[in-house]
Amino acid sequence: MSQSLFGERGDKAEIEEGSAFAPKFDENGLIPIVTTDAESGELLMHAWMNAEALAQTIETGEAVYWSRSRGELWKKGETSGQLQTVVEMRTDCDQDAIWIKVKVGGNGGTCHVGYRACFYRVIPVGTKERPAELQFAETEKLPKE
Amino acid sequence: MSQSLFGERGDKAEIEEGSAFAPKFDENGLIPIVTTDAESGELLMHAWMNAEALAQTIETGEAVYWSRSRGELWKKGETSGQLQTVVEMRTDCDQDAIWIKVKVGGNGGTCHVGYRACFYRVIPVGTKERPAELQFAETEKLPKE
Repeated sequence: MSQSLFGERGDKAEIEEGSAFAPKFDENGLIPIVTTDAESGELLMHAWMNAEALAQTIETGEAVYWSRSRGELWKKGETSGQLQTVVEMRTDCDQDAIWIKVKVGGNGGTCHVGYRACFYRVIPVGTKERPAELQFAETEKLPKE
Repeated sequence: MSQSLFGERGDKAEIEEGSAFAPKFDENGLIPIVTTDAESGELLMHAWMNAEALAQTIETGEAVYWSRSRGELWKKGETSGQLQTVVEMRTDCDQDAIWIKVKVGGNGGTCHVGYRACFYRVIPVGTKERPAELQFAETEKLPKE
C-alpha cells in the first residue's frame, strides 16, 4: 500500500519542482508533521508519521501519527475524542516535512496536557534570564468532555 | 552560553507544566522548528536548530538555523536578504519542538526554490493516484531582488 502511494525520490529538480509525491523519511523511518487548525490557522502540534501513518492519513482523511514514546501507530483522538479531520495536506520543497490543516473533534482540544494547543508557552526573545524562563500564553485548560 | 540559557530536563511535570526552558535535542543534537509568518499566520518553512543556533536566535532575535545538508550554522537571509526577525517564539508541551513567528525581510520570500513559502504543493486527501500526484498551490515564483 505505502509503496505504491509514494513515488521514488528522483533528482533535486524532480523533488522540488515535480508533481510526484516522494516523501523522505528520516533514519528512524519518520517524517515531521506540522498540524494547524484549518479555520484559525493556529499551530496546534508538531508530531511524526511513519509511512503507514502517512498512508492511512491520506487514505482515510483522519490524522494518524506515529507515537515515538509508545512505538506504535496513534490515531489522534481515538480515546480522547479529539479526532483530526484533514481539510488540506501539503508537503514542502524537499518533501521532508508535511503540513496538515485539520478540524478538531471532541472538545476541540489538541494537547494531552489539557491546553487547547501544544504551544502554550512563550520563550522571551532577548531574555537575560539563565536558564530562560517560559511565560504561559494559555493559562486555562479546557474542560474535559 | 548555551549551557546556561537552557535548563536541565526535569521530570514530566516540570517539562510540561513548568517555566524552566529545557529543550530536548534529538540524537543528532537538533530540534525541529516551525516557522510561520507573524502577520498572516501562514506556515513558511520547517527546519532545524542545534543548541548554538537556538541560543543565537533567542539572543539576537533573528532566526539562525542548522543546515543539515551543509553541516553548518545558517543565518537565514544572510545571502538572500530574506532575514527573519522573530516576533514571538514558543515551545510545546514536551519541549521538543519550537515555533517561531517571524517578519521576513528582502523580497518577503522564504523558500530557496523561489516560491514565497516552502509548502507550495498539496497532497490530495483520498487520492486514488499511485503514486500520489501533487498539485501546486503556488504557481508564481517571486521576482528576485
